[in-house]
Amino acid sequence: MQMLTDDETAELIDTAAELAAAAREATLLHFRSTGLTADTKESDRFDPVTVADRLCEERMRAILARRRPRDAILGEEMGVSSGESGLTWVLDPIDGTRSYLCGTPTWGVLISVADETGPIYGLIDQPYIGERFEGGLGRAVVRGPLGERELATRAPRPLSEAILMSTFPEIGTAEEEAAFRRLSGQVRLTRYGADCYAYALLAAGQIDLVVEAGLQPYDVQAPMAVIEAAGGIMTDWNGRRNPEGGRVIAASSPEMHAAAMQALRG
Amino acid sequence: MQMLTDDETAELIDTAAELAAAAREATLLHFRSTGLTADTKESDRFDPVTVADRLCEERMRAILARRRPRDAILGEEMGVSSGESGLTWVLDPIDGTRSYLCGTPTWGVLISVADETGPIYGLIDQPYIGERFEGGLGRAVVRGPLGERELATRAPRPLSEAILMSTFPEIGTAEEEAAFRRLSGQVRLTRYGADCYAYALLAAGQIDLVVEAGLQPYDVQAPMAVIEAAGGIMTDWNGRRNPEGGRVIAASSPEMHAAAMQALRG
Repeated sequence: MQMLTDDETAELIDTAAELAAAAREATLLHFRSTGLTADTKESDRFDPVTVADRLCEERMRAILARRRPRDAILGEEMGVSSGESGLTWVLDPIDGTRSYLCGTPTWGVLISVADETGPIYGLIDQPYIGERFEGGLGRAVVRGPLGERELATRAPRPLSEAILMSTFPEIGTAEEEAAFRRLSGQVRLTRYGADCYAYALLAAGQIDLVVEAGLQPYDVQAPMAVIEAAGGIMTDWNGRRNPEGGRVIAASSPEMHAAAMQALRG
Repeated sequence: MQMLTDDETAELIDTAAELAAAAREATLLHFRSTGLTADTKESDRFDPVTVADRLCEERMRAILARRRPRDAILGEEMGVSSGESGLTWVLDPIDGTRSYLCGTPTWGVLISVADETGPIYGLIDQPYIGERFEGGLGRAVVRGPLGERELATRAPRPLSEAILMSTFPEIGTAEEEAAFRRLSGQVRLTRYGADCYAYALLAAGQIDLVVEAGLQPYDVQAPMAVIEAAGGIMTDWNGRRNPEGGRVIAASSPEMHAAAMQALRG
């Protein structure tokens, strides 16, 4: 892991804040507009990429080109730009494009910085609510309608008392769905459709588990930084910290993580 | 339907605004707190009733006792109080208690006024976002983070292009779930977990359909007033305007309603 000076740390956090501010403006230009156009990335799935998605990543990349020209970038919309600093900005301008299209305020902007160990700082921003969850580089904080609060995950509790979130009831492959249903059958409550907001709620101590499959690096790295900073744990379904994504399980505590892993395995 | 003078209309709208303001304060006292207690109303279902739910209804009833002593009240928490004016206030202090417990901002406060024909005015308020959707008595408006906008449902489109929302993937009885799946299989996108916020998004022209089952009068009357004022239609699965609830279908237009009804019937 890179050793950063206080100035370097402050500069990274400040850059992330500038990116998030630009992203708020860009995403809100089109949110709740009627007649939003949506391209389809794959012919067999509904995966809209909006004008706002592209505009947002363009604006963030322009800021990074000015402030952080030596860092690499991995963006959901425009792929990889190489760098030489050892740091990579990982950007998902709108995580939850389906929610964005529907007008539901559970989509978010994901911004993080990784070194060779994975994400070291990340934020989840919800522009419409005006709420930002940050974690890493010594920070674990949410600022929004209720002011500023420290982020801390929930204390361990029995799996039977846990609240589980996932984006879809139809998760991944048939095998993955069966594993998910084993887990879902053992928790108190399962909720769907929260997108990246589910990770924010985990970091804020509101829920116990998030389980997903088929995720990309830009889907997982900001949530991973925020959740780890808040005291939680986020791994793949084999229990490894995996910034590449894939099958993901995020838990409020190592105990909850272990119990949920056991249920997934069956 | 009762004929109301302009003064009477203004007084009803102003009373609803006072109720909604009190409800915002009461519900936010406990939202996102950790260790929220939750009673269980029925032993076989997770149906939490929070301290906030009760506090909120108490405060709204105190306002009505002062301002509208002759009106009846039907509240989710405290049942029916009779009146003699012919008007009934229908209150659901927190619609979407599961979302409230999880921290997801898609729960809402539902407030409406009914005469013998059903709801004549209603509002859906989301206190955390600071967003209020109002309809009836000449109004159809949303005020929130993007300012004030007129509410208008979407123009008709083919069912295959429609966005459908529902609270649960497991809707009602096996028969109801089968009907729901027939419909869900014919639309472009189905999203879960939005609670009363789904009706607000329909009124705002963001989605095309909301389908639910097992609803109560206090679940449906405020959404019905808002959706009708925005140009939409909300009935039971037999196509009747039904302020009592039960199986509900809300649609952006009569055309969309007819197409979805046909799919539900199979």
